[in-house]
Amino acid sequence: MDANQFFKSLGIHLDLALEATEALRGDAQKEIPGVSETKEEHTHATVTTIKIFNKTGQQIMGRPEGSYITIEAPDLASNDKEIYQEISSIIADKIAELMQELKVGKDASVLLVGLGNWKATPDALGPEVIESSLVTRHLFHYAPAELRGGLREVSAIAPGVLGVTGIETAEIIKGVVEKLKPGIIIAIDALAASNLNRVGTTIQLTNTGINPGSGIGNKRTGINLETMGAPVIAIGVPTVVHAAVIAFEVFAALTQNNPYLTQQITEDKMQGIVGQILEPFGGQLVVTPKEIDELISQTAKVIAAGINQGLHPGVTVENSSFYLQ
Amino acid sequence: MDANQFFKSLGIHLDLALEATEALRGDAQKEIPGVSETKEEHTHATVTTIKIFNKTGQQIMGRPEGSYITIEAPDLASNDKEIYQEISSIIADKIAELMQELKVGKDASVLLVGLGNWKATPDALGPEVIESSLVTRHLFHYAPAELRGGLREVSAIAPGVLGVTGIETAEIIKGVVEKLKPGIIIAIDALAASNLNRVGTTIQLTNTGINPGSGIGNKRTGINLETMGAPVIAIGVPTVVHAAVIAFEVFAALTQNNPYLTQQITEDKMQGIVGQILEPFGGQLVVTPKEIDELISQTAKVIAAGINQGLHPGVTVENSSFYLQ
Amino acid sequence: MDANQFFKSLGIHLDLALEATEALRGDAQKEIPGVSETKEEHTHATVTTIKIFNKTGQQIMGRPEGSYITIEAPDLASNDKEIYQEISSIIADKIAELMQELKVGKDASVLLVGLGNWKATPDALGPEVIESSLVTRHLFHYAPAELRGGLREVSAIAPGVLGVTGIETAEIIKGVVEKLKPGIIIAIDALAASNLNRVGTTIQLTNTGINPGSGIGNKRTGINLETMGAPVIAIGVPTVVHAAVIAFEVFAALTQNNPYLTQQITEDKMQGIVGQILEPFGGQLVVTPKEIDELISQTAKVIAAGINQGLHPGVTVENSSFYLQ
Amino acid sequence: MDANQFFKSLGIHLDLALEATEALRGDAQKEIPGVSETKEEHTHATVTTIKIFNKTGQQIMGRPEGSYITIEAPDLASNDKEIYQEISSIIADKIAELMQELKVGKDASVLLVGLGNWKATPDALGPEVIESSLVTRHLFHYAPAELRGGLREVSAIAPGVLGVTGIETAEIIKGVVEKLKPGIIIAIDALAASNLNRVGTTIQLTNTGINPGSGIGNKRTGINLETMGAPVIAIGVPTVVHAAVIAFEVFAALTQNNPYLTQQITEDKMQGIVGQILEPFGGQLVVTPKEIDELISQTAKVIAAGINQGLHPGVTVENSSFYLQ
Repeated sequence: MDANQFFKSLGIHLDLALEATEALRGDAQKEIPGVSETKEEHTHATVTTIKIFNKTGQQIMGRPEGSYITIEAPDLASNDKEIYQEISSIIADKIAELMQELKVGKDASVLLVGLGNWKATPDALGPEVIESSLVTRHLFHYAPAELRGGLREVSAIAPGVLGVTGIETAEIIKGVVEKLKPGIIIAIDALAASNLNRVGTTIQLTNTGINPGSGIGNKRTGINLETMGAPVIAIGVPTVVHAAVIAFEVFAALTQNNPYLTQQITEDKMQGIVGQILEPFGGQLVVTPKEIDELISQTAKVIAAGINQGLHPGVTVENSSFYLQ
Repeated sequence: MDANQFFKSLGIHLDLALEATEALRGDAQKEIPGVSETKEEHTHATVTTIKIFNKTGQQIMGRPEGSYITIEAPDLASNDKEIYQEISSIIADKIAELMQELKVGKDASVLLVGLGNWKATPDALGPEVIESSLVTRHLFHYAPAELRGGLREVSAIAPGVLGVTGIETAEIIKGVVEKLKPGIIIAIDALAASNLNRVGTTIQLTNTGINPGSGIGNKRTGINLETMGAPVIAIGVPTVVHAAVIAFEVFAALTQNNPYLTQQITEDKMQGIVGQILEPFGGQLVVTPKEIDELISQTAKVIAAGINQGLHPGVTVENSSFYLQ
Repeated sequence: MDANQFFKSLGIHLDLALEATEALRGDAQKEIPGVSETKEEHTHATVTTIKIFNKTGQQIMGRPEGSYITIEAPDLASNDKEIYQEISSIIADKIAELMQELKVGKDASVLLVGLGNWKATPDALGPEVIESSLVTRHLFHYAPAELRGGLREVSAIAPGVLGVTGIETAEIIKGVVEKLKPGIIIAIDALAASNLNRVGTTIQLTNTGINPGSGIGNKRTGINLETMGAPVIAIGVPTVVHAAVIAFEVFAALTQNNPYLTQQITEDKMQGIVGQILEPFGGQLVVTPKEIDELISQTAKVIAAGINQGLHPGVTVENSSFYLQ
Repeated sequence: MDANQFFKSLGIHLDLALEATEALRGDAQKEIPGVSETKEEHTHATVTTIKIFNKTGQQIMGRPEGSYITIEAPDLASNDKEIYQEISSIIADKIAELMQELKVGKDASVLLVGLGNWKATPDALGPEVIESSLVTRHLFHYAPAELRGGLREVSAIAPGVLGVTGIETAEIIKGVVEKLKPGIIIAIDALAASNLNRVGTTIQLTNTGINPGSGIGNKRTGINLETMGAPVIAIGVPTVVHAAVIAFEVFAALTQNNPYLTQQITEDKMQGIVGQILEPFGGQLVVTPKEIDELISQTAKVIAAGINQGLHPGVTVENSSFYLQ
């Protein structure tokens, strides 16, 4: 059974490029044309960089050309100082790397966009990262140049904090982008994974922005170079899995190494069952840890620290926790 | 396959008495000794009253003797004025009924307790109800008697709003109860159901309080007559289902009317599979609608309106929305 | 001593047109050229409509041509149902009146803008009104026409909820306005009065928008027809007085009917003293009631109810509290 | 004119012992019987320790016997790392000193109490400190002893976060204290000063707890050894001045070195004028900086860092910002 296809048939998009490649490559670790993959090992994390470098790769992966970096850190949310420092430094390095690839200069101004609904905890990662990030644009407009040393011009917006306002998120962001004309946008969002082990342990960074179907909220318009007129780095962390994942894992476990059950439990039957179980709430159901508030708040701290280090030369791994707002 | 037994084997307690009786009675609608059940039909709701009236019933149901009233209202969270008024009036009547059974006088003072963690949206029902409830104890202590007409003495506490403080919820409540000596406690809590259709559509009221194993938070000590020294009415609404429910429903759908699969998929196999799937986060995983914030806020309004009407003679179905705080 | 001039010399702008006319007309009730004034008496409120109808009036008043309606309701924040209904109905009527003057059609879409910083309670009125307002734009985009009966297309934004983001409020609003192209903007803001009796008791509505110097926050750019490209109705409630007001009232009380002290306490001396007292925090000091949170929350409810009734034919004085979000 | 007497005649209590001694000693720097005072100079702060050591001192000062430590740090709220570290270390040392004087052992458990109303920003200091403090009691109950190294048993409560509940703050705290039986209570509160220069720049620590009349909220019952049954260290920061202070400073400036005005402006006249000006809101009016939210949040960070360092041997000046929650 093919996870990718199963979720696609249910209208569920896999947010993580790494999950998409894993599903495509299968146990046989097949090569995917137009796609490269490299791995680095750190003490508390594995970092996988996937590059989609042509139209074929784009089509197979269902994602735009560009870089997709995945940090897998099983103890990300553990509130341990050493892990926190390692992961925030990796995030900082990878932001710098992606900006270089995008040819965004060291002086380019940045607009941070915290996506998601701050009132629904599993979707509140983006707003919480904004809350902790170092915003400096006001300093640049009112302070003399010599006081700006070690800081880059950064502004921030968390449009979902505005609640149900009848305004689509992308409209607000686009409006602000047209006024501010940032050199680059960094958008932070909560993602849905297809594996519970990824919740709160995996961070994806990409220089392709956010594309329709991603995220756990309702974002109909993409937030990317094309729609915004500025390059977009997207940072995402899975905070939920779609409820269908549980069903899929049951099927997978039943049919694994069991030809009899594999024959009995057809894809049609599976889809019928899942469709019926997930009927309430139009299938918009997510699985999330009970203690989701702590997971969100600790993950947000690590990401904000990484962003602060990555953007401002004056913020270092040692002082980064002081500069969390 | 027996839902009750399946969940028990996974250490999952069914919060709703109605679900427990349904599981016990099965399709054959067997009588349960020591337990009575009556139903009323309303325009937008069905109300089932289960009474456990002896030791046998208590043992079979795994619940203390007392009344368990379940309001099933599929459109509870629809923000429709007519439904809102009908359901809040039913809640008010049932609170009055339970208080009468407990022989609590019309002048008895009330302590409202909003259980749950306000920072994790699916668990924030209790604090949100408190936020909207009419609290009057300060009026009674500072205002002349003639100004108190139409109001009962009500105080309120939402201990989980205090966050992770290292103090167990029941300790805080017990401390406050010993100071205030209320005539009765009404505790509001978010529950876990074993059926997605119950999320945001079902309200349970009981005069037995909250007993270990209930609720989606970690409440190790019960909140009941025995622990608090005052009778406790508990009002609960399922806002999540345990993630194991999805797995159970897959098994149930596969094995229904299929003797081959029923034979293949043994209970042992099922438990093994579910145990493995739910390993992350120690199995503390819940399924919840994406738009959980709206569900919580609308449900909290209906319940607070019902409580205000039930407790204060001066609050009526017509003016109850004005008195929501 | 002239209040107007005293505050002007300290760089303090009077937010209420009514206070400006009172200061200009003095005890002698002089006519002000280019300015008309009419009064209506209601059971719980006095409504004064000031019209500035030519350049002369504009110059004397230091305000653009247009209508300035002031509702004085000493018991506005009393949480009494009768007062609440009268005042919200007056607000609804006056919004309709101002929209008619602006020749804004009954079908024109509306953008509500809640100004102010939600984290500083005295400045949080705008965001709290937004929180309670009925927003419908999403219904218009996704629902069939027949379901929209009784509702107008309304969207809303509370830019200050985004916190210190380095983006000027007017930039965000302008960006959103350019995307949404609303027929009219209604901006709600907390004001500073020059009289403590006005705090929480006075509401000003004007069809001239918000002009530099108004409000208690830092709004350097106006929010008006000229800057936004759409007409702007501004609704303001004084929630603070500037700290200099206390000093002014001491001087006024000392010198009233006392020629000796009037001679001794010169304007120069007064300004010197006030300058020194208000030195900390660059003079950005406000006087506010201790229980400011209740005042803000009750005032916000009345205003949101008035807006909901004024904009949506289907919302009436009887059902308006139900439709508060 | 005597500040102390002026405020007393208006029913205003001076929260800071240092202000009381300054008022009593006057320009002549008179000795106060039963009261000693010592000063230490630090790079960014002056620390004054006042000890009231007998009944005479107690009566003159209107305060219980005990130690009152005042840290004056003009740049406290500047968000500068060096200042932040110096002040938090001083707070840590002084907490240790006061605990030693109270003969509270190094293993004594601590209950942190964050007083004040989190919904009214100027009064939200206590709850914000609690939000950032390291709470460990749950670790002690569930973790093996070897994992507790470097941590003391700390629990925390912010009763005002519960809002208007009809329960007096002291009742809730007393209830919790009777359950937890802490070795010592540390209560944090926002104070009212009699001088604008103290707002956000001064920290008072005392081992006498909180006594009626202190603080800007309504605390009718004291929180001290007598009422709680455990010793209480109170940490307070002025975040407002009473509005009468502005009036007083005007009088003081007018009459200073001016015998004519001194003769004209009698205390009776002053009290009459102030009484009239402050009539709205029953005189419960405070003066506060516009940007009060930033002042509160930065001050809360410094105090929480000081408490964390003072209580847990494992938290040092270098790592303290990491351990802010």
